[in-house]
Amino acid sequence: MRVFGIDCGTEITGFGVVESDDTGRKPRLICKAKGAIRLVKSKTTAERLEQVFRELTDAMDLWKPEVVAIEEVFYSVNAKSALKLGQVRGVALLTAACHGLPVAEYAPLKIKSSVVGYGLAKKEQVQFMVARLLELDEIPEPADVADALAAAICHIHTAQTLSLQGGQR
Amino acid sequence: MRVFGIDCGTEITGFGVVESDDTGRKPRLICKAKGAIRLVKSKTTAERLEQVFRELTDAMDLWKPEVVAIEEVFYSVNAKSALKLGQVRGVALLTAACHGLPVAEYAPLKIKSSVVGYGLAKKEQVQFMVARLLELDEIPEPADVADALAAAICHIHTAQTLSLQGGQR
Repeated sequence: MRVFGIDCGTEITGFGVVESDDTGRKPRLICKAKGAIRLVKSKTTAERLEQVFRELTDAMDLWKPEVVAIEEVFYSVNAKSALKLGQVRGVALLTAACHGLPVAEYAPLKIKSSVVGYGLAKKEQVQFMVARLLELDEIPEPADVADALAAAICHIHTAQTLSLQGGQR
Repeated sequence: MRVFGIDCGTEITGFGVVESDDTGRKPRLICKAKGAIRLVKSKTTAERLEQVFRELTDAMDLWKPEVVAIEEVFYSVNAKSALKLGQVRGVALLTAACHGLPVAEYAPLKIKSSVVGYGLAKKEQVQFMVARLLELDEIPEPADVADALAAAICHIHTAQTLSLQGGQR
């Protein structure tokens, strides 16, 4: 299974492609790609959204994932921030739809639990555990990239659990 | 000048194409097209956003406007609604950027003032005046379509005012 994780932000949108390799004795998680889309402040909002669309489209075309995993949005933000974040998130969801990919949404608590084993884990803990689970040589930076990879890992863990439960029936 | 007005909504997104005809003695406004994109509730969010993208893309391809006019968002809504509206708005702005079109944003008060002459005009007043200014046989329905046409008219009025001011210098 190859999963495309996205972490939307109004300044940086992180993405990462994670594949599960179940051929060995122990299932492994492999990071195929990761990146950060840094929005240029001098551009208009429409131009910035086009940048997100093009970079996500290029990455999906190249890596051909089977599914997109994305964080559900946490509504503690104010309406103005929510609108701006929504604009980026809308473009991310659209990109998935344009590639015919299903979208799996996970609550932030669920993603952190899945990666760190603790829903209220700090940013650094998520970065550390993502690096460890994916056997990366370096901590993924910025944190948005780690969050995108974490969403993808969460989807794989969830799918593995469901498949295990199915097998036990 | 041919303007593509958009009124974003989480259920219905209205659009309209308005052209200014300055060839006669008195400048006229002509409605070239109008439509409502009604989102299918049974679809996923990503599929609904794709529907907005495809329908707006088709209309822009067909009508080849020079500019897109859109309402600035009014932040009285809560964060959850703002996020949902933002997702649709992001896709609308993206469509403009994908067509290389500049985007002009106008405050709701400014749009109503421009069409009705009164910033706090009611929905029905906007629909009535849009029908009158564009010499339509019927009131544009739903109100989202009238709002999209009103945004386009507002842009033309603003451009005419600016050009007049320029000429007087």
